[in-house]
Amino acid sequence: MQLIPPPAGTASFTAPRRTLMGPGPSDVHPRVLAAMAQPTVGHLDPAFNAMMDETKALLRYVFQTQNDLTFPISAPGSTGMETCFVNLIEPGDTVIVCVNGVFGGRMIENAERAGGTVVRIDDAWGAPVSPDKVRDAFKAHPHAVALAFVHAETSTGACSDAATLCGIAREFGALTIVDAVTSLVGVPLLVDAWGIDAIYSGSQKCLGCPPGLSPASFSSRALDKVRARKSKSNSWFMDLSLVLGYWNAANRTYHHTAPTNGLVGLHESLVMAAEEGLEASWARHQYHHQALRDGLQALGFAYLVAPEARLPQLNSVHVPAGLDEAALRRTLMDEFNLEIGAGLGPLAGKILRFGLMGYSAREENVRLCLRALEAVLPRLGHAVDKGAALRAAESAWALQQPVAAVA
Amino acid sequence: MQLIPPPAGTASFTAPRRTLMGPGPSDVHPRVLAAMAQPTVGHLDPAFNAMMDETKALLRYVFQTQNDLTFPISAPGSTGMETCFVNLIEPGDTVIVCVNGVFGGRMIENAERAGGTVVRIDDAWGAPVSPDKVRDAFKAHPHAVALAFVHAETSTGACSDAATLCGIAREFGALTIVDAVTSLVGVPLLVDAWGIDAIYSGSQKCLGCPPGLSPASFSSRALDKVRARKSKSNSWFMDLSLVLGYWNAANRTYHHTAPTNGLVGLHESLVMAAEEGLEASWARHQYHHQALRDGLQALGFAYLVAPEARLPQLNSVHVPAGLDEAALRRTLMDEFNLEIGAGLGPLAGKILRFGLMGYSAREENVRLCLRALEAVLPRLGHAVDKGAALRAAESAWALQQPVAAVA
Repeated sequence: MQLIPPPAGTASFTAPRRTLMGPGPSDVHPRVLAAMAQPTVGHLDPAFNAMMDETKALLRYVFQTQNDLTFPISAPGSTGMETCFVNLIEPGDTVIVCVNGVFGGRMIENAERAGGTVVRIDDAWGAPVSPDKVRDAFKAHPHAVALAFVHAETSTGACSDAATLCGIAREFGALTIVDAVTSLVGVPLLVDAWGIDAIYSGSQKCLGCPPGLSPASFSSRALDKVRARKSKSNSWFMDLSLVLGYWNAANRTYHHTAPTNGLVGLHESLVMAAEEGLEASWARHQYHHQALRDGLQALGFAYLVAPEARLPQLNSVHVPAGLDEAALRRTLMDEFNLEIGAGLGPLAGKILRFGLMGYSAREENVRLCLRALEAVLPRLGHAVDKGAALRAAESAWALQQPVAAVA
Repeated sequence: MQLIPPPAGTASFTAPRRTLMGPGPSDVHPRVLAAMAQPTVGHLDPAFNAMMDETKALLRYVFQTQNDLTFPISAPGSTGMETCFVNLIEPGDTVIVCVNGVFGGRMIENAERAGGTVVRIDDAWGAPVSPDKVRDAFKAHPHAVALAFVHAETSTGACSDAATLCGIAREFGALTIVDAVTSLVGVPLLVDAWGIDAIYSGSQKCLGCPPGLSPASFSSRALDKVRARKSKSNSWFMDLSLVLGYWNAANRTYHHTAPTNGLVGLHESLVMAAEEGLEASWARHQYHHQALRDGLQALGFAYLVAPEARLPQLNSVHVPAGLDEAALRRTLMDEFNLEIGAGLGPLAGKILRFGLMGYSAREENVRLCLRALEAVLPRLGHAVDKGAALRAAESAWALQQPVAAVA
């Protein structure tokens, strides 16, 4: 038997040492990397089961919920989104979907593939979702079964008023599906107090884990809708009626093989979030955001998002006229090992996105970023006032209550 | 604002040091763990893109295929299965599905949720899929668009004749969907030579990675079927027409955030597979299987699967009359940190499954397992001939051509 030979020239991968200040993944704390690198244990091991239970309890804390069904979906955030729609939406259901960036648009794709009839609300990319438009949509479609929106739009850096939006949905008896991929742990998010029914996040943003897992939580109202379905969900892997038996029972039913090492990393990041405390984490993101913001503005960058809707952990700025933004990103990567993010969709080439998420939200990252920009921008024809950016950042830090560094 | 407090008593997880000889996950080589624990890089980083290209090339080697669309799906093996059905099966399509264990049954669930009409073929759990039954099914349903079967049934340890089954499907112009979760790298698997159209595996079996990724490959015939679909796939996350742009283009389109660290671990395991060579890996699995087999038989265990269909990497044996198999598994875990597998479904309580997959397929594991069984079985009322199991294993090794240990 003649086999196809292996490809020539492949070798072990040596990861470059980057500083991750794009829209995610963010820097991963060494504690999380070390936790993940422990020897693999079986997904049915009693020690692993105990860790899963702790993970669920810690997720309830970061989501601020008592929801029983709070667990990490064994796949990226996109699967968290799809899990919500494929379970809560049945063929023929009307869903109001708010679009103010890439991920609202993706929600429409998901709602339609689940058989839903979508009522679409548009807001400008960079603006938050308009509560008035949502109320009008419910008045026009009072039988809509769900409202879906993105809390923190990763493609723009806009934060929507989730509490108000959920309140409107509840007035009309509708469920809420909320994307918290970028918001979780970075800004206040109160699942129970706000009445969110289905929510998902991602491991690689403010939790500071590698990508690949999607923490999620479902209210008892959401589960009632799942249990009352007339037809099976389109998806076997994401079917909550099956997943329930795996994540929620005292006696676990085998569903799929859980991504053991990734879950150990997530658990460690949650232990760290509990050690720091949610309020301290929100304050830390805000603290470094203000320094980065003042530094970026001193360099001549203007924010896409108005101050009242601005996410501290995702800073989108307009590309100044004449600046080759791709060359800027490439040079920051090549010379400073610094990753920042480009715009997506209609904002491609028009904005830059600076992430300050999780372990990336720290002083040395802000300093590196501003220093690197100050060095590179003049070479690309964008004049800067030397030293101004770091002075602005220093002032911003000095004016605020200091926050503790991440342990 | 009064927050819900974090749960009391949570702490960093210290993984127990297990030896994994169940049906997967298997032991993960220290090189793979170390690769995964490198600092996270962005999923659009040029260095990461180069590693992704190598991963695809290395997967083509282990699958023995030239298929362009050969890539790791960013989720567990169950998602690999669902990706095949949700793309290749359209509402109204007839699919012949072979069931000789748990995973064939799961294929039916997937085919039906994708809108397919299933023609079910049953074989005994522990037996391979019968080519005669498949031929008869095609004669009765000549317009079936696909044949789906499991190459290596993880729930029983039976290996089916994939080459013959694919040949029959091709005679009738049907596509083939093949589950290679447990077979890949452990036994011969020749995707192109056998004419397999859609195949998926799992990272946590003979590749020796942590669970969470599903290597997959699709022939051009399979992609023609995807491109000719009249309706969109039920799933956004698994839609190959979208995934294609992400994994296959020179200029990558953002689809989802790839699980970066997990993929670096998979890459390392593939580099190791290429270093060892497929034929050497198949020989190593066979070599240690024969030793374990002779040792188990010396202890009084009888195999579920006939010799000609037996997978070297998954050894299923009947539970001897009167033996408390749950107590045996618990004691092996508590006293020897050794994990072995229970039976699933109708075989629960009736069989035990001993995995010898990937890095677990090595001499010290065989020795530990036989020693531990010899120590524990008598205490559970099952008499053994002291020393016989290890002597039998030694003889089996001595009678074979020696194989190299894993580096």
